[in-house]
Amino acid sequence: MSGTGKEFMEKTQYGYLGMSDQASGYPQPELELGTEDSDSIVDLPLPKDIEIEDIGLRQAIEKRSSVRNYSSEPLPIEELSYLLWCTQGVKEVVRDVVTFRNVPSAGARHALETYILVNNVHGLEKGLYRFLPIEHKLVEIDMSEDIADRVMRGCLDQPFVKSSAVTFIWTAVPYRMAWRYGQRGYRYLHLDAGHTCQNLYLSAGSVGCGVCAIAAFLDEEINPVIGVDGENEFVIYVATVGKK
Amino acid sequence: MSGTGKEFMEKTQYGYLGMSDQASGYPQPELELGTEDSDSIVDLPLPKDIEIEDIGLRQAIEKRSSVRNYSSEPLPIEELSYLLWCTQGVKEVVRDVVTFRNVPSAGARHALETYILVNNVHGLEKGLYRFLPIEHKLVEIDMSEDIADRVMRGCLDQPFVKSSAVTFIWTAVPYRMAWRYGQRGYRYLHLDAGHTCQNLYLSAGSVGCGVCAIAAFLDEEINPVIGVDGENEFVIYVATVGKK
Repeated sequence: MSGTGKEFMEKTQYGYLGMSDQASGYPQPELELGTEDSDSIVDLPLPKDIEIEDIGLRQAIEKRSSVRNYSSEPLPIEELSYLLWCTQGVKEVVRDVVTFRNVPSAGARHALETYILVNNVHGLEKGLYRFLPIEHKLVEIDMSEDIADRVMRGCLDQPFVKSSAVTFIWTAVPYRMAWRYGQRGYRYLHLDAGHTCQNLYLSAGSVGCGVCAIAAFLDEEINPVIGVDGENEFVIYVATVGKK
Repeated sequence: MSGTGKEFMEKTQYGYLGMSDQASGYPQPELELGTEDSDSIVDLPLPKDIEIEDIGLRQAIEKRSSVRNYSSEPLPIEELSYLLWCTQGVKEVVRDVVTFRNVPSAGARHALETYILVNNVHGLEKGLYRFLPIEHKLVEIDMSEDIADRVMRGCLDQPFVKSSAVTFIWTAVPYRMAWRYGQRGYRYLHLDAGHTCQNLYLSAGSVGCGVCAIAAFLDEEINPVIGVDGENEFVIYVATVGKK
């Protein structure tokens, strides 16, 4: 066993960090990835208008299990919108420099982006989208016919990536975190992805869905499929969702 | 900015991993840290006997915020027991080789241990304990008078580590994860700690408590305070809890 992990834990101790870019006066990176004028934006039902038959928290926690087999029943776009809200929804933007979301993030850095592979959602075309958390909208990323196959291949051919109603693919934009926390921020990116995925597990229970988290993916294959370079932005966690 | 984080992400790609110890036939590590005959074990109220005024999941998610100021009201031991249950409680032990818990873990490896610094819990002496998730009991680790001060110092003197009712300190036992997943498992340890902390945030809402997660701690100071070597077991995440 090589010492990569041990070395990472050692070199992200405070003694190694040096002065942060924030402390050095570098400008703060953007709060979310932007859009181009040519992008196709898709509206989502707004969280305040979505009525969900809520469940008790204790039941949500105790009944959670990982589910890899889904029915063919489509996920309504309202329920998808609710899951996006619970996982990365923005409750408040403060002075254009900080977002408060439905999940915690170290120093409210919120360095994650959410891509969704839509396989079977009522009210939404199949394809790959990115979530715009501040606007609570989607932007089309790749509507090719074979996009689900390519994402599945990047996830070591695990078939439920394609048989899900929707597969969440979270990326990290590490500089958004490292600007303040330096290389130790790479720990925090993973902690944040864990917070987010747990909210997906629990909120999916409210809409009759099961979830399976996936951290076994081929970085070098899935990053280009999503359209990210693997360095300034990389896939950090994946989770499939579908009706049980 | 040095490349520690980038290097970690690269070297934990599948191409670098080699054969796992599991595939090589090495025995599986223990499911949880054990106890010695000389240890003092403390019973906890059992989850099935704990009645909590549950809240709706949506409210729990939307109302969550990080809380650093706590009232002087003690946390009853029943509520502490409930929080331990929601964060690492074992629902089932399968053939003595796998645990299913109230949080997900990559491959059900469950490589986390939970230590609690008890500052203000009704029914429990002040001190540092470790949770035994399979038995749902506590074991006394350090009942010294200055233990809270030492944990606080390890957390960069953040005062709410000591003014909380209880401070959760999660450690990782990396070999429990790396046995199957190799060095990539260090990513998963952090993802799992994120799942766990999110359940603490949400379940604390059911018992009128606020939480503040802490990832800013001095590894080389806090590890010896907890009594772990920083390599075979290390502190991965901390969270304070107290009545609002």
